[in-house]
Amino acid sequence: MLTINENYLKLPGSYLFSDIAKKVAAYQKAHPEREIIRLGIGDVTQPIAPAIVEALHRAVDEMGDAGTFRGYAPDLGYDFLREAIVENDYRAWGCAVEADEIFVSDGAKSDCGNIQEIFGPDCRIAVCDPVYPVYVDSNVMAGRAGTYDPATGKWSRVIYMPCTAENGFVPELPKERPDLIYLCVPNNPTGTALTRDQLAVWVNYANENGAVILYDAAYEAYITEQDVPHSIYEISGARTCAVEFRSFSKKAGFTGLRLGFTVVPRDLTCGGTALHGLWARRHGTKFNGAPYIVQRAGEAVYSAEGKRQVEAQVACYMENARVILQGLKEADCTVFGGVNSPYIWLKTPEGMTSWQFFDFLLENANVVGTPGSGFGPSGEGYFRLTAFGTAENTARAMERMRKVLGRPKSFS
Amino acid sequence: MLTINENYLKLPGSYLFSDIAKKVAAYQKAHPEREIIRLGIGDVTQPIAPAIVEALHRAVDEMGDAGTFRGYAPDLGYDFLREAIVENDYRAWGCAVEADEIFVSDGAKSDCGNIQEIFGPDCRIAVCDPVYPVYVDSNVMAGRAGTYDPATGKWSRVIYMPCTAENGFVPELPKERPDLIYLCVPNNPTGTALTRDQLAVWVNYANENGAVILYDAAYEAYITEQDVPHSIYEISGARTCAVEFRSFSKKAGFTGLRLGFTVVPRDLTCGGTALHGLWARRHGTKFNGAPYIVQRAGEAVYSAEGKRQVEAQVACYMENARVILQGLKEADCTVFGGVNSPYIWLKTPEGMTSWQFFDFLLENANVVGTPGSGFGPSGEGYFRLTAFGTAENTARAMERMRKVLGRPKSFS
Repeated sequence: MLTINENYLKLPGSYLFSDIAKKVAAYQKAHPEREIIRLGIGDVTQPIAPAIVEALHRAVDEMGDAGTFRGYAPDLGYDFLREAIVENDYRAWGCAVEADEIFVSDGAKSDCGNIQEIFGPDCRIAVCDPVYPVYVDSNVMAGRAGTYDPATGKWSRVIYMPCTAENGFVPELPKERPDLIYLCVPNNPTGTALTRDQLAVWVNYANENGAVILYDAAYEAYITEQDVPHSIYEISGARTCAVEFRSFSKKAGFTGLRLGFTVVPRDLTCGGTALHGLWARRHGTKFNGAPYIVQRAGEAVYSAEGKRQVEAQVACYMENARVILQGLKEADCTVFGGVNSPYIWLKTPEGMTSWQFFDFLLENANVVGTPGSGFGPSGEGYFRLTAFGTAENTARAMERMRKVLGRPKSFS
Repeated sequence: MLTINENYLKLPGSYLFSDIAKKVAAYQKAHPEREIIRLGIGDVTQPIAPAIVEALHRAVDEMGDAGTFRGYAPDLGYDFLREAIVENDYRAWGCAVEADEIFVSDGAKSDCGNIQEIFGPDCRIAVCDPVYPVYVDSNVMAGRAGTYDPATGKWSRVIYMPCTAENGFVPELPKERPDLIYLCVPNNPTGTALTRDQLAVWVNYANENGAVILYDAAYEAYITEQDVPHSIYEISGARTCAVEFRSFSKKAGFTGLRLGFTVVPRDLTCGGTALHGLWARRHGTKFNGAPYIVQRAGEAVYSAEGKRQVEAQVACYMENARVILQGLKEADCTVFGGVNSPYIWLKTPEGMTSWQFFDFLLENANVVGTPGSGFGPSGEGYFRLTAFGTAENTARAMERMRKVLGRPKSFS
């Protein structure tokens, strides 16, 4: 009999950012004269850097010429890009990663969502709480999450590792043994990171317990502190227990260009089977390569000019982060993140829930942020702002927020 | 305990085209002086058309300008592209499809591979035999295929619908009732199509039996005969039983640009649940949109200039198809396809197996084709050639083939 994947029906409501978009659209419709500043969704605002634009134009011309036209890309990515990645993101940081361990893709969201497919249906997953919703949602769809309890906001088979102000946003080793451990460092949404020593605890734990760490380093480019590793492969032992996801979205403004990659070390096995071969098979069967022109754009990110330009963009966003941190502190908010990450995580004032604060901010300051509870139950009572706006909008948003938070009201 | 998805291990060997690539590489290494002509993999050779190149350049410039930069694309595709698609691919053909039923993606391979996720784990699938391997492989990975019998080349839970010279390559209604029916029309690899009346039989069957047709129309642009429908939605009743996949790869040479789309009509339900919502949820959770610049390129395919240019490209390939058909007939081969499709399907001469003929052709004519058996057990004894080469290479390949097939040898 024709049936659907019943797991899809277990997912409560729709995707967080769709919900926000609907609320904002409704507010804007009711108040067309108000100018809303969006510091909600983690989307960049600076244009693609000149060196990358130039590379794109060159690649487009190649595609328009019979002598240089390229059809299907190699399944796992062009060598020119895989080698630039290995050289700049790994060898330069002392990490032993080879070009044939890099799987180029259309972005970290796809990879983070798809990686669970190569694992068994009964694997237990552990996630930081709060965290990027794709890890849990993709496992719900695959039937690994159990049942949802609306009262707690938790899934029965998911192991939650709370990251709150109380533990300094450092997840503690779980009491129940997980098989797959999702770590997002620097974390989305809290903007906090793990030091080398803190991450080493997890690598050792995974190796000792036969678990795999699924390490999402999409915000790596924003790390500023010396003791925060840029890759999990900086940690000894990671090659036998960790997969790493990277993205060009936040590093170089590729949210609308789509490029990312996954590292699956050849040493990483499960019951004698190399995960590298499984992921290669998935890639080869259900994906047909990232566009040539976008892979050339990715290569340009690593050119001398490209590096300088994307680093300047990141510096702009981090200046915004500084402005937000300072503005919120002046408004007596309790704030976290924003140092190794473009995300600022704040405690909602006066005991408001995350969504109450969302509504309060939208209505009183016309500023859009993201309710912390949308990222997991321990996100309740927190709120995320992003540093991806323009400098001007960021400053204006802070001005508005200082004003409305300076004269707080009570909420039921 | 950490486990892998054991279904992956059931997949015999690796992906067909990887096997071919390895054989060809080994032969080229042993005979570096020989010039190999590739009529194997279905990849285009003509460059991206000028109107599309222009659109790409314009979009790249937009991405490099703060005033026109675009970040994340809408999950399901930009309206400008969805509307161009609806107007040109559906309304112009009298099909009732709305823009919000179009899901833009990075290509039909991803969509064909991913669509099975929204269905239940026990659904029985039916496939034409031979056919594009992704349908079966993606269901093997999901555990729906049962066990593989190397003796027959069949999976125990897959319903095979042989398409051979004996039945004119028209699949017969299966004896066992399938839940999901994959139809590829025009068919890859046989190059044959179904008439409106033949397709109506399937639409009626699916509606009467509560099955869903997964209709892959990736080669629609090559249809030349009047009674072959371009879309399944030309058939009355298809909106309640069919999902359609389309691709820009073969229509406009986008194999290296990556763009496709899936149509999920809102009328298509299973047990009261609309498949539209399930697919939207999958897209929103595990995909982040096709690149803006590539969607603008897709839009340009529907401009007056773009249409003229891509139709001229398709006409060139179809002229190659004519040359191949004629050349093979002159060499006394039995040939099919090539009229509504860029694929020519031939019976291997002298009772050779598909792989024997592959080796024979590689070694004696230095021409690469695709063994029919790679597409399913009923493909044994057949061979696929593609019309995607250059006109010059196609003519030279035919010359070589006429020579070696003109003086046939015997094979054990």
